[in-house]
Amino acid sequence: MQIRGAGKIACAGASALCDFSDRYEGESVECFRDDLDAAVKEILGSRPTAVSLWNGVHACIRDIDSAKGLEEARASVSENAKRFVEMSARAVEAIGRIGSKRIRDGDTIMTHCNSSAALEPIKRAHDQGKELKVYATESRPWRQGILTVNELADAGIDVTLIIDSSVRTVMKKVDKVFVGADTITSNGTLINKIGTSQLAVCADEARVPFHVCSETYKFSPMTMFGDLVTIEERGCEEVARREELRDRVKIFNPVFDSTPAKYIDAIITEVGVISPGSVYDIMVRQLGDGIFKEME
Amino acid sequence: MQIRGAGKIACAGASALCDFSDRYEGESVECFRDDLDAAVKEILGSRPTAVSLWNGVHACIRDIDSAKGLEEARASVSENAKRFVEMSARAVEAIGRIGSKRIRDGDTIMTHCNSSAALEPIKRAHDQGKELKVYATESRPWRQGILTVNELADAGIDVTLIIDSSVRTVMKKVDKVFVGADTITSNGTLINKIGTSQLAVCADEARVPFHVCSETYKFSPMTMFGDLVTIEERGCEEVARREELRDRVKIFNPVFDSTPAKYIDAIITEVGVISPGSVYDIMVRQLGDGIFKEME
Amino acid sequence: MQIRGAGKIACAGASALCDFSDRYEGESVECFRDDLDAAVKEILGSRPTAVSLWNGVHACIRDIDSAKGLEEARASVSENAKRFVEMSARAVEAIGRIGSKRIRDGDTIMTHCNSSAALEPIKRAHDQGKELKVYATESRPWRQGILTVNELADAGIDVTLIIDSSVRTVMKKVDKVFVGADTITSNGTLINKIGTSQLAVCADEARVPFHVCSETYKFSPMTMFGDLVTIEERGCEEVARREELRDRVKIFNPVFDSTPAKYIDAIITEVGVISPGSVYDIMVRQLGDGIFKEME
Amino acid sequence: MQIRGAGKIACAGASALCDFSDRYEGESVECFRDDLDAAVKEILGSRPTAVSLWNGVHACIRDIDSAKGLEEARASVSENAKRFVEMSARAVEAIGRIGSKRIRDGDTIMTHCNSSAALEPIKRAHDQGKELKVYATESRPWRQGILTVNELADAGIDVTLIIDSSVRTVMKKVDKVFVGADTITSNGTLINKIGTSQLAVCADEARVPFHVCSETYKFSPMTMFGDLVTIEERGCEEVARREELRDRVKIFNPVFDSTPAKYIDAIITEVGVISPGSVYDIMVRQLGDGIFKEME
Amino acid sequence: MQIRGAGKIACAGASALCDFSDRYEGESVECFRDDLDAAVKEILGSRPTAVSLWNGVHACIRDIDSAKGLEEARASVSENAKRFVEMSARAVEAIGRIGSKRIRDGDTIMTHCNSSAALEPIKRAHDQGKELKVYATESRPWRQGILTVNELADAGIDVTLIIDSSVRTVMKKVDKVFVGADTITSNGTLINKIGTSQLAVCADEARVPFHVCSETYKFSPMTMFGDLVTIEERGCEEVARREELRDRVKIFNPVFDSTPAKYIDAIITEVGVISPGSVYDIMVRQLGDGIFKEME
Amino acid sequence: MQIRGAGKIACAGASALCDFSDRYEGESVECFRDDLDAAVKEILGSRPTAVSLWNGVHACIRDIDSAKGLEEARASVSENAKRFVEMSARAVEAIGRIGSKRIRDGDTIMTHCNSSAALEPIKRAHDQGKELKVYATESRPWRQGILTVNELADAGIDVTLIIDSSVRTVMKKVDKVFVGADTITSNGTLINKIGTSQLAVCADEARVPFHVCSETYKFSPMTMFGDLVTIEERGCEEVARREELRDRVKIFNPVFDSTPAKYIDAIITEVGVISPGSVYDIMVRQLGDGIFKEME
Repeated sequence: MQIRGAGKIACAGASALCDFSDRYEGESVECFRDDLDAAVKEILGSRPTAVSLWNGVHACIRDIDSAKGLEEARASVSENAKRFVEMSARAVEAIGRIGSKRIRDGDTIMTHCNSSAALEPIKRAHDQGKELKVYATESRPWRQGILTVNELADAGIDVTLIIDSSVRTVMKKVDKVFVGADTITSNGTLINKIGTSQLAVCADEARVPFHVCSETYKFSPMTMFGDLVTIEERGCEEVARREELRDRVKIFNPVFDSTPAKYIDAIITEVGVISPGSVYDIMVRQLGDGIFKEME
Repeated sequence: MQIRGAGKIACAGASALCDFSDRYEGESVECFRDDLDAAVKEILGSRPTAVSLWNGVHACIRDIDSAKGLEEARASVSENAKRFVEMSARAVEAIGRIGSKRIRDGDTIMTHCNSSAALEPIKRAHDQGKELKVYATESRPWRQGILTVNELADAGIDVTLIIDSSVRTVMKKVDKVFVGADTITSNGTLINKIGTSQLAVCADEARVPFHVCSETYKFSPMTMFGDLVTIEERGCEEVARREELRDRVKIFNPVFDSTPAKYIDAIITEVGVISPGSVYDIMVRQLGDGIFKEME
Repeated sequence: MQIRGAGKIACAGASALCDFSDRYEGESVECFRDDLDAAVKEILGSRPTAVSLWNGVHACIRDIDSAKGLEEARASVSENAKRFVEMSARAVEAIGRIGSKRIRDGDTIMTHCNSSAALEPIKRAHDQGKELKVYATESRPWRQGILTVNELADAGIDVTLIIDSSVRTVMKKVDKVFVGADTITSNGTLINKIGTSQLAVCADEARVPFHVCSETYKFSPMTMFGDLVTIEERGCEEVARREELRDRVKIFNPVFDSTPAKYIDAIITEVGVISPGSVYDIMVRQLGDGIFKEME
Repeated sequence: MQIRGAGKIACAGASALCDFSDRYEGESVECFRDDLDAAVKEILGSRPTAVSLWNGVHACIRDIDSAKGLEEARASVSENAKRFVEMSARAVEAIGRIGSKRIRDGDTIMTHCNSSAALEPIKRAHDQGKELKVYATESRPWRQGILTVNELADAGIDVTLIIDSSVRTVMKKVDKVFVGADTITSNGTLINKIGTSQLAVCADEARVPFHVCSETYKFSPMTMFGDLVTIEERGCEEVARREELRDRVKIFNPVFDSTPAKYIDAIITEVGVISPGSVYDIMVRQLGDGIFKEME
Repeated sequence: MQIRGAGKIACAGASALCDFSDRYEGESVECFRDDLDAAVKEILGSRPTAVSLWNGVHACIRDIDSAKGLEEARASVSENAKRFVEMSARAVEAIGRIGSKRIRDGDTIMTHCNSSAALEPIKRAHDQGKELKVYATESRPWRQGILTVNELADAGIDVTLIIDSSVRTVMKKVDKVFVGADTITSNGTLINKIGTSQLAVCADEARVPFHVCSETYKFSPMTMFGDLVTIEERGCEEVARREELRDRVKIFNPVFDSTPAKYIDAIITEVGVISPGSVYDIMVRQLGDGIFKEME
Repeated sequence: MQIRGAGKIACAGASALCDFSDRYEGESVECFRDDLDAAVKEILGSRPTAVSLWNGVHACIRDIDSAKGLEEARASVSENAKRFVEMSARAVEAIGRIGSKRIRDGDTIMTHCNSSAALEPIKRAHDQGKELKVYATESRPWRQGILTVNELADAGIDVTLIIDSSVRTVMKKVDKVFVGADTITSNGTLINKIGTSQLAVCADEARVPFHVCSETYKFSPMTMFGDLVTIEERGCEEVARREELRDRVKIFNPVFDSTPAKYIDAIITEVGVISPGSVYDIMVRQLGDGIFKEME
């Protein structure tokens, strides 16, 4: 599972730094800073495009510059790492708790692909005794919608599978959309499973509030520095078997798409319900002003 | 093939009335009118929801009331029938000729499902030496997009298959959308393969002109009388195998969707390029004022 | 009742011309044309701003120029008058029949003010056994909504009264809007009871189809000639008692407002369901090409 | 002046056919038809892209097929030609008369470039004693706005010149936009001086009604047959002197742009105020059903 | 008056905590924290849905966790309480001062219901000698618009009363909308008197800037935690007398409605002019990071 | 050059305060604060409308209230001044670095007027080897577009000059818009060269991301306090020579226009890529909480 994956990667990075700090045997804070820097580089190098890893690692070192002396420096890394791991571990649960309050008894919800963060509020709202109806898209080419409908059905929820082309038809009956996030940029753009932006456009057309459920470690500070998110293209065979097609037929198979902030009504995070206009500010608050040095 | 089918059904109906009229042995125009009326009812009863059949039959009888005498009445049915059949036979070709002029050298086009009327202008524009690039959607659940990409590849056209969820992502690169029609209502709404309206919404968002290619026998006079087009729902097994799903998972599988007139830039018909605001007027012109009697 | 009133005025005008024609004792068609012209002027002068009267009178004289001889001329006036009266008499009933088909079982409908043409489809759909829910606005300052809710309640329909400020809140639950018309212009603009355009804007925002129910004698040929519809302002006391207000407080109390064509999905008339783009064409068809002479 | 030019070209074509017909000395209607056909081809060949010429010529021959005998055929050409010339001669005056009624006392109007048809209603409204304020764009590169402001100032109208970049800023204060037309397509698209579509987009954003003033001979039947209007690009020196620019700087200088029907509230023609949805129908009415043969 | 009420409630809560703290006779900071906690719970319990009370109370205790020792803790509560009360007392005045600068000489303003915070900038701008014109809605069912027009007339301002259905008609003449707030959510949604969102939609359609005047104690931190604002429904008799209505007529009478952030150009608060995207950040700044603990 | 000018003015102000502080010979921090206050007033008085000067000066004094003792106070002014000057000096370079990452190989970009901050990312992206195509508007009346096209041509970039009226026509081919800023308000509105808002509206219509490149010293804290930005009107002779025009022709020649936040996808600053919703928060972060005192 890719989303839980993002969290695990982040926590692994933070824990590695915690370990590094706890076991550090050098004697000066200057050396510690240098060695920490090297450790950070190594850890990030292992998964250079993983936003969550970057966030996990930087959460640990955010107070390193202001620390006075070695012990305080080590302690700050260690505490920040623990706080990050704890927060991340509870993030999906917190999103579920917060998001479930935004679901009313009798609501019809649409979701896309298979996102823990997006399904958690739905399942919790159901557990609270709210009567719900969920439409889940098939989410070609991998058809993660099959996972979603089975997961919700197992939870006892009234769920209907639709093909991706039915989104606009069904949208008229929907009260709220809940989707997950792969990455969120500093200006509030959502990068998520291909098709997400079609839900957003159709929701906007029909005045249906569009909610993104995202742990804050999916917020990408690199986009603050100008980086564009590269959208992976995957192989053709996911879309059609080669023998179905004439030789000269091409296939374009992007994994994600991009939903502009103007289509997003709320982002539900473990630090509360925010507007896309607050992503940058949360990044700065979480990473500390030191982040600006990184930009130089 | 459903679309060619619509034309064939219409022509069959017109031809049957032509035969009836040619072989008629009664002696008064009054009897002819009565017998014709019965024949019409019988023919329509064979396929009560087929818009094209209704149009074919009514095209034949449009001048029957003003005919003076039996011979003129028989002649009018016979001539109208022949004119209708001839026009219909040439309709896709005419749409190809007219529509191809709206495609410029270098255009990128998106199409959906597999419509003769929509593909004809593209193929003809290619034959005229224009360099084109076509994106065709997979069109789940039946995946008629496979037919389309192969048909266009056979014609030598540069064609790329995309999943239905990629429509918005790809739309930014597209110059024009061409789709077919199942039915067009008197106020200019398009009923077509599920997913069509998502192309329309995404085209509107990105300022891409949206063209509907439709023979006029797809224009539904019943909608002029108030009828709503009933959108067929089909079986679940088209979307997922039952064994993939938990028992309580439902499937909603509508075959068509509805695109409002405001998203349609032009309808390309065998009587020219029109705006959706002209559909009613073409209906009245083709069916004659007698159509209003039908409404009572 | 204002709407029935429009029809009655129109029929009175047509009937007066019919009488004039039937009793005419002059001897030449030339004299008849002159005298008819005087009669037309006199009739129109009695209610110079009544669109329906204008339509009723012109429907009678539409073939007068092509009539050969006195008898044909008299007959044409007489027949056209009868046809107009008959058509008008049945117009609301026809609109009810046609419009009721556009209402599905289970629909929630919003209406405004108190329009026979708009309520007829709703009542008829209810009679057909369809389960409906209707929201009716209070329609300040005259509160015609009280008439509407009582009329629908008497018909056995589930109806809820809302204040005019609740339109947007309620719109999210609505499937279709049905309103009447005071006047429709040649380019498809609707002039109707103040507040109508707010329903239209809110319906557009929430993707709710907006239907106008209008007899074609509400179509204003004067607007074809460029005339703007003058919107009456009424007295302050309809809005507030003078003693409630400080002396210097002003009141602005327009009776109608104007809804642009782009917000109208369908106009339901006695000649069928049309788009606003067809209004001009129906005017020309009904009034004959002679109408262009009037423009000079 | 280009617009009067369009009318003059059209009338010249119609007059030439009238002459041809009046002086025809052949003896059979068959020969007349053939010779007329050759004359038509020759006339059209002299200005193959002139929409108004095409309309003028086809207006003359519209009844030729139904004419019985030589005299009737000659008469039909001659009468149709005279009617067309007379109508065209009065078209701008009629548009002025009709359009002036749509201007209210106190209105602020924006116009673009220098169009007789667009300025006529403004000047006539001023003559009617209405107080007006007009904003006219400079209309780079030719700066026809200078002509417009001087023409309106000479007429005694309060006129303000603005640069083309100020359109959106000024639009908030504007009550109505009036522009002319180079060509109008069968689906209601306006082709007019570059910059027109920016007025339309800004008017739409600010809820300002956008009026197009156009003689019907600007309606292009070729677009009904699928033709796209080719937009001329003109030389660089109109935009900047070569010596102002580095060698490698390019210039793109299109003369016209294209405004979609959805931004047009009304087209004011000599046959009345219409919606863009009526263009096709007016074409067919004016040219007769024979036009469909041309399409084959 | 409900809005002044919100401020009074908040200050009462803060003052109560200040008193509690000043009079506290316990001896350890631990006890103080526990007792304070109990006091907070009791105060909040008296008005559990009052956002302003919640804000007032939490403003007092924001630094309690970081206080070292009893005296510092008591002092922090006391000082924070005083600062909050002082800030709140001056909030409407500050909003008036800030908001008045956004009104230009000659502006036409629309307002809804009767909000001190929204009227203060208008009255102050008038006092500054700016010439203004104000349209105030009746605001059925309670007709607070009567209060508003009288209040503005007493201040010497040119004010016009309109019915709620006239909002869209009048909007075309309006330069700016000023409304108050009941509650503002963490993602920038405005909850205010029923009808507010119709002003917003109509303002958006006509490019009229929409300003919300709100003290920051109306920002709801509970919405940050996911809570939806429950919109009260009130009795039928406010809308119509029971005897006016048939028995089966229902009435739906919600007190507030919800305006999404995308329709809000600016929120004018006592801490300056902000975008709806800044609400969350102001909450966190005012309540301190301790607020996140509340979320758990 | 106006933009570099803004930076220079700001740095001059900061440097003056730095000098003042370094040379200060008084002996108490109280005196220092008073004298500093006088110096600030004098410096601001020299250019009372210059936003950047205000920002530069306030950046220096942001920590003055919390400074303990004279030396700390002097040091804080001096250090803040140096930090501000350094940051500002690098701001355009930083914007270039950050913005260049948002440009992809093959992109077509549109720009307006002549802004260093907007051109820097383009030039840097070109230096990175990305193939670009740029459309630059003429930017009447001063025609700064001539500077822009020559500057980009000198940098070796493929650049095309267009007139301001071509913006919408060209926009369909554009991937991204980059413009500079004169001022940005606390609620995210952009004030920039007249015509900028037309690019924004046309970009929005065609789904083209609209980027503003702005140093944060262009963010106006006065707008936080309610101030509206006054848009200068300049002389007529910039638009037309008086002898071209009739005497009574007026000219309206505003220098800037205003682009609402909803049309802005991203603001690229030296502190990263932000949404317009973050402007207020950056202001507060940079100026410190002391800024709120200024509001009183």
